Amino acid sequence: MAVATLTFGDRLAEEVERKRSQLVVGLDPLPDLIPVEVRDDVARFCCGIVDAVAPHAVAVKPQLAFFEALGAEGMAAFAETCVYARRAGLLVIADGKRGDIGSTARAYAAAYLDGEEPLADALTVNPYLGRESIEPYLAAARRYGTGIFCIVKTSNSAGDVQDVKLSDGRLMWQHVAQLVAEWGEDLVGEHGLSSVGAVVGATHPRAVSEARKLMPQAIMLLPGVGAQGAKPGDLARAFTSGPASALVNASRSINYAFRGSGDDFRAAAGAEAARLKSEIWSVSGW
Amino acid sequence: MAVATLTFGDRLAEEVERKRSQLVVGLDPLPDLIPVEVRDDVARFCCGIVDAVAPHAVAVKPQLAFFEALGAEGMAAFAETCVYARRAGLLVIADGKRGDIGSTARAYAAAYLDGEEPLADALTVNPYLGRESIEPYLAAARRYGTGIFCIVKTSNSAGDVQDVKLSDGRLMWQHVAQLVAEWGEDLVGEHGLSSVGAVVGATHPRAVSEARKLMPQAIMLLPGVGAQGAKPGDLARAFTSGPASALVNASRSINYAFRGSGDDFRAAAGAEAARLKSEIWSVSGW
Repeated sequence: MAVATLTFGDRLAEEVERKRSQLVVGLDPLPDLIPVEVRDDVARFCCGIVDAVAPHAVAVKPQLAFFEALGAEGMAAFAETCVYARRAGLLVIADGKRGDIGSTARAYAAAYLDGEEPLADALTVNPYLGRESIEPYLAAARRYGTGIFCIVKTSNSAGDVQDVKLSDGRLMWQHVAQLVAEWGEDLVGEHGLSSVGAVVGATHPRAVSEARKLMPQAIMLLPGVGAQGAKPGDLARAFTSGPASALVNASRSINYAFRGSGDDFRAAAGAEAARLKSEIWSVSGW
Repeated sequence: MAVATLTFGDRLAEEVERKRSQLVVGLDPLPDLIPVEVRDDVARFCCGIVDAVAPHAVAVKPQLAFFEALGAEGMAAFAETCVYARRAGLLVIADGKRGDIGSTARAYAAAYLDGEEPLADALTVNPYLGRESIEPYLAAARRYGTGIFCIVKTSNSAGDVQDVKLSDGRLMWQHVAQLVAEWGEDLVGEHGLSSVGAVVGATHPRAVSEARKLMPQAIMLLPGVGAQGAKPGDLARAFTSGPASALVNASRSINYAFRGSGDDFRAAAGAEAARLKSEIWSVSGW
């Protein structure tokens, strides 16, 4: 099996340092919210956001659910958006939170992460089906230099599952954080970051600090800033493993910035991305 | 909000009793395995299987990963297969193991379960994001008479997550089983079965019996029979809550039955489905 010359962690770290940005822009094309002039063309909306944020963000994170809800046409728009974003110099994190076993997990890896020109650079995944369900993504990471972000603690109140107390006193999400650290051990690149990252809700700043300690080499993807109310200022500790050791995601506050400003949707998204990028970089202390 | 006259549990129960079948046929279109004559037309393969198994099965379970791996064209084939199967009198269980929060979960519900003519009758979902992530599916169930099957204990060896011991002595999957029972409490139909079902791997017969006790009103979807090695004979206790209280899924042993027999793929699938249906019905004791 050929080994990718550059790991996902290294590719990301280089982009973060080059652009001085840890901003990820989520792409959440909600038909009711997108501008009238592109309402029937989700790909055009998404590519417009890509153009606007490309100088300011390191990655985009298209949310698969919103494309799936539009059927086959939506999935075509998803693919078009991914190709367009990669050409614009952005990494693509497909947000699908997939999780399945055996050859089904291999099919998800094939759909998003395999091949010389995969649709995405990384995929969000769900840990509930255990290490075996993660293996195909690890194989893709080794071979193609792609990565995953495993859900650890989400930005909603999922305490009924994630905060359940284990017999050794830890909480469920802390156990999953340790699994994520183990799964990613063999995939640490030259920047000290693994291609197995973690999703930790920015809405839980204390958990973010603790997650950093449990997964020192994981890139943390932090959603919840903007529309969900989290503040970049609370996230400084996430960045202690390096400038690229955490990424802050904002989706709606950028996608739909025009709804507050009245500007062109691209101009409004670009301005909000530029502002947020600087705020995050300054918080990160790098 | 209008209430569906018939719940998913009731619709399923009526079909099970009418057809005297608890068989679900998984649709796993793997390009390397499907017959040469339909290799470039996954929908034709799936619809061929649908025709062959419609008299013997109560539902088909298309595995989304295999359609997603074929891109937008695959998703068009998925939709075509769902519509075709429902017209053939089969219920459709979309196997996506989706799980996300807020408006993203609502988008998944919209993609598969909402509306007067939803693509699927039920969707498999992942519990890791907690009750809030399940709510949109419950709303769809109340309104449109659709359902979900929540992953509880999978047929692989996911012990690193699902068998973790909690502070009260239960295992993680047992906790999730109790959550599933709670989530489904308000959706129990006239047949005593909830529209919130559970996926429990047939490869763990002891867990199946225990899951039955923890979730007396949940319809259990039991994968792992056939290619994965589980035997229907081990599953009798799953059926103690009624003829429709458990469904046994087989995918590859039916989809690819022709590879052993040399028959036409439809004829081979139909014969294997008929055989398995009778074996399961007899095991169920109804």
